[in-house]
Amino acid sequence: MDDTIKDKETPQLGKYELIEEFAKFFPTENGSTVVGIGDDAAVVAPFEENVVSTTKVFLENVHFDLTYVPLIHLGYKVVTIAISDLLGMNAIPTHLMVNVCVSDRFDLKNVSELLDGVRACCDGAHVDVVGLDLSTSRKDLVITVTAMGECEPARLLTRQGAKENELICVSGDFAAAYAGLLLLEREKKVFLAQPDMQPDFEGKDYLLRRQLKPEPRLDIVEALRREDILPTAMTLVSDGIAAAAMQICRASNMGCDLFEEKLPMTELTFTTLKDLDIVHTVAALNGGDDYELMFTIRQSDFEKVKNVANVSIIGYIKEKAAGCHLVTGDNCLIELQAQGFRNLKS
Amino acid sequence: MDDTIKDKETPQLGKYELIEEFAKFFPTENGSTVVGIGDDAAVVAPFEENVVSTTKVFLENVHFDLTYVPLIHLGYKVVTIAISDLLGMNAIPTHLMVNVCVSDRFDLKNVSELLDGVRACCDGAHVDVVGLDLSTSRKDLVITVTAMGECEPARLLTRQGAKENELICVSGDFAAAYAGLLLLEREKKVFLAQPDMQPDFEGKDYLLRRQLKPEPRLDIVEALRREDILPTAMTLVSDGIAAAAMQICRASNMGCDLFEEKLPMTELTFTTLKDLDIVHTVAALNGGDDYELMFTIRQSDFEKVKNVANVSIIGYIKEKAAGCHLVTGDNCLIELQAQGFRNLKS
Repeated sequence: MDDTIKDKETPQLGKYELIEEFAKFFPTENGSTVVGIGDDAAVVAPFEENVVSTTKVFLENVHFDLTYVPLIHLGYKVVTIAISDLLGMNAIPTHLMVNVCVSDRFDLKNVSELLDGVRACCDGAHVDVVGLDLSTSRKDLVITVTAMGECEPARLLTRQGAKENELICVSGDFAAAYAGLLLLEREKKVFLAQPDMQPDFEGKDYLLRRQLKPEPRLDIVEALRREDILPTAMTLVSDGIAAAAMQICRASNMGCDLFEEKLPMTELTFTTLKDLDIVHTVAALNGGDDYELMFTIRQSDFEKVKNVANVSIIGYIKEKAAGCHLVTGDNCLIELQAQGFRNLKS
Repeated sequence: MDDTIKDKETPQLGKYELIEEFAKFFPTENGSTVVGIGDDAAVVAPFEENVVSTTKVFLENVHFDLTYVPLIHLGYKVVTIAISDLLGMNAIPTHLMVNVCVSDRFDLKNVSELLDGVRACCDGAHVDVVGLDLSTSRKDLVITVTAMGECEPARLLTRQGAKENELICVSGDFAAAYAGLLLLEREKKVFLAQPDMQPDFEGKDYLLRRQLKPEPRLDIVEALRREDILPTAMTLVSDGIAAAAMQICRASNMGCDLFEEKLPMTELTFTTLKDLDIVHTVAALNGGDDYELMFTIRQSDFEKVKNVANVSIIGYIKEKAAGCHLVTGDNCLIELQAQGFRNLKS
């Protein structure tokens, strides 16, 4: 599209040769892969009836900041985010396509680092990379990831389906990634003011890892199958617990109570947020970047879900009229507010 | 991902409400659509064994120029480009996902115009829009389109499979979009110098339409099925005839002769290029933005292919050692050069 413009704006990439070269990064393993990188489109022959797909776009200085994000971690993270959307439907990720737009600020080595991260995350999740496209950008790095997966129809979970009295579960712990982001932003400011200062992250490895290199919760989706638990609704928690709970309630036409004292958080996250003067519950509810799963289960699955590691029950589903609330430690009801539901100019 | 950065850089969108609102633009019709816009991911249950997918990224001022591209045409064109990749595999497009990143330069009406164009093209091709995501950008408009389609394995065509003596066919005519782009760029320069000048496009409608609102060649893929012609290799012609022919030859381990006098071009394209001092054959070989199909057929399908409207035979496949050449009107052999195969800094 409009090569003339491209020619004027940016130096040329030896695009096709380069894609062929990078294709070697991504040998395919899945039996369902038919055509991988290098033709007009990718072709897969899914084993299951339902094909689940998502595309995520990542813009430099909007969605990521290269002053403190290493490219290899960025590659890993964008894959985690894309395949987490599929996990949020209870699907198993199988294939991935990636598009990278670079300006002359970047060289081959940079693109290789990014794709090394993409490969590492895909390898861990047994996902085949079947699409790769390179393009020029004016200045900022732009990354697009399309993830595809499979699900038997009986196991597919949307946000719709939660019923009254069902239990609300989440995987992992919360606000660690948000605390990590705050630390990185703080040290960035220090660095910009005094470039010879060394960043101070001692003992904060877990928080940085949660922000920079989050893991997709494939283990949870697999454990639910193993324990023969079929949740009634499911979603990815990417913008905080509150938004996820409200999305399930909205789609299911229900309300909920979440219990402040049940929100899972590590001691390190708690003390770090305290030192940063952030209310830890607000960070868990609205922090973002957790990429954990939220799902609702029948009361009858209560015993079974105890066998799934790293899952906490944080509340239960109520009738719609009850609304969506947090029950605080001192038994106050606070209405949930989701970030993201905001006005825009029209 | 990194909401903190987003908050600092751009005004907030009421993202979820807005996506819900725009979802009404896109009622789904295909029986294979399971979950459309508004959950973590899209779900389809394909009828055919092979699922064919592609993702394209479009960056303002790299891939399109809003000074002369109306948003509704842009929406149409990005869909044409994405689903054309599927047609290039001989697949039938069925589903589409679109991501739009906008800055505060754009308002709701702009996004609506863009999505109106997306819808128009999808409607014409009976494609369901099953994914929509909105995000913020710093300044430029960024559009990502993921197209999904289906194909029975026996009909799937890659670039690989062309054999010696087979005929090279293309749909439509060439270089019209390139001529249209040159006219638009010329008038843009005039406009920037003298903003009160009216652009002069009299009689050039076809060229502008080919550049601004190209059509996907679903008719060709359908006609090949109707006439029971199974080509041996196929690809989309997006960067000129030369690149497409070389891609088929490279993948098939073959060479080819193309005949200059057989390259299809309208009289209007020819005279316009002449007026612009552009060699018309070079424009057809390397012009780009045509989104026509190239495919190879057995000699035995020669009679049958005459029944397919808008298809020209432009050359034939030779052994690899013969190389890839254009045979000029005066019987000279010129080696094909594809744009895109260029060096980059490493």
